Amino acid sequence: MTTRRASTTRWYAEKDPFSPINYRYPKPKLLYSEKSRFQHIQVMETEFFGRMLVLDDVVQLTERDEFLYHEMLAHVPLHAHPRPTKVLVIGGGDGGTLREVLRHPTVKQATLVELDPQVVQVCKKYLPTVAVAFDSPRARVLHQDGAVFLRESGERFDAILVDSTDPVGPAKSLTTKAFFSAARDSLTPKGLFVMQSESLHFHADLVREMQETLRGVFPYVDLYAVPLATYAGNWWTFSIASKAPIARAPVRAVLPDTRLYSEEMHRACFVPARARETLLAMGAGPYRRP
Amino acid sequence: MTTRRASTTRWYAEKDPFSPINYRYPKPKLLYSEKSRFQHIQVMETEFFGRMLVLDDVVQLTERDEFLYHEMLAHVPLHAHPRPTKVLVIGGGDGGTLREVLRHPTVKQATLVELDPQVVQVCKKYLPTVAVAFDSPRARVLHQDGAVFLRESGERFDAILVDSTDPVGPAKSLTTKAFFSAARDSLTPKGLFVMQSESLHFHADLVREMQETLRGVFPYVDLYAVPLATYAGNWWTFSIASKAPIARAPVRAVLPDTRLYSEEMHRACFVPARARETLLAMGAGPYRRP
Repeated sequence: MTTRRASTTRWYAEKDPFSPINYRYPKPKLLYSEKSRFQHIQVMETEFFGRMLVLDDVVQLTERDEFLYHEMLAHVPLHAHPRPTKVLVIGGGDGGTLREVLRHPTVKQATLVELDPQVVQVCKKYLPTVAVAFDSPRARVLHQDGAVFLRESGERFDAILVDSTDPVGPAKSLTTKAFFSAARDSLTPKGLFVMQSESLHFHADLVREMQETLRGVFPYVDLYAVPLATYAGNWWTFSIASKAPIARAPVRAVLPDTRLYSEEMHRACFVPARARETLLAMGAGPYRRP
Repeated sequence: MTTRRASTTRWYAEKDPFSPINYRYPKPKLLYSEKSRFQHIQVMETEFFGRMLVLDDVVQLTERDEFLYHEMLAHVPLHAHPRPTKVLVIGGGDGGTLREVLRHPTVKQATLVELDPQVVQVCKKYLPTVAVAFDSPRARVLHQDGAVFLRESGERFDAILVDSTDPVGPAKSLTTKAFFSAARDSLTPKGLFVMQSESLHFHADLVREMQETLRGVFPYVDLYAVPLATYAGNWWTFSIASKAPIARAPVRAVLPDTRLYSEEMHRACFVPARARETLLAMGAGPYRRP
């Protein structure tokens, strides 16, 4: 094995306070770096991953693998609903979730509520294959706090997808019981709420806490996951909740042109009970030898 | 977000020539470091992962998460066989796979063929919860090249599990058509061959190559996976092959005391067809914008 690379390579090192492994990307090209009102926005490029969106020094997406996250966040709930017509995305200023939502021909309107307008502008310029759907006539884009929007709008949705940064700073208000209750009250009777809920490997305490808070608000709560290379901890979870039973298989024909999502993937993605019990019981503290 | 940690922390950085992300572990305590005849063996400890076995500067296992890898490598094939009695492990000098194999009461003898005796000695001393089964009367431990053993022993096995390092250096001989053919000829009629086959995210070319080589040798070949936090690329695959159809569900009662493996996990772990096609077609080269 060569050891030469380590001494000569320039690296971009994430500053992720939640990760027990630090991820470094070789030979980054910095394309954009500005502080918005809310956060430090960077776009960089590496040979393997293509362009990457980095917020407050944590990688949010890469061109190479963003489809894994966005397809799973959008298509599991939207295929578990018999006919989604109105969909709300909270966060997701890169546009990847919006792009996937609007692939469903039943969807008449997708509302995206993103706090930081500068993220949307930057992604339109630097990540055109991700930010491809903002100009759709079926898209409505609002720049305000998602929790405030839910509390005040009075609208009803068939699916609410929370595509947030880690639950600190701007996204902290999105993991409270009050927020989940407002989401429940904004769903149609068969509507689904889904939220990215961090890593089973690295953030099990957080996964458990979100699942428990959701169970206090919704009668049906489940957990599915997908392995992501560029989120530290990688076994990435999505907490899904509803006032009606949640289908662990598609309830209608699946979209023909997805790259990852499929009927088979829908059936396989729910975290098996024994795995969930073991990992949530381990938590996210220091390792204790049995 | 704090940026303080990055400037004051000591790190252990892997030197993994196959990874487009470099993994760094904070505040490692080095417990052992020696060069054996075959490789550089290190044992270190971090707060989150406990002790870690590191070979040629690539992390091979950690106390915290080794059960995920070892359970999946052993229990999927052993639950897909009606009554495994003789099992061969090639590599796996840490003893974790052997430990899982010997949990099956049907197994009368498990043979472990590990090239490097020093790995076994080090793991017995520093990783006692992993290297727990070497002294079992049902365990036979040989120190030689696994490919040579298979070619020359004339023995028959119900399962052959290849628990190797990355397929470079000492492990390169374990991915050839000749080796797979010798494995096929050493299996009983319903016997199963399984080999760790690297990451869907980072090593898709290698996964594809191993799957194709196996298809040239075995009539039945499949691919399953589990997300591992400490192997770069993390969506870790296992290539499974047999002369008989391979069960995608357990064919007998599952062990009661596993931490990850379960009937539900067995059914969920096979990589869905659409995901497999997309990721293997992407390969492991630089990102190309469509």
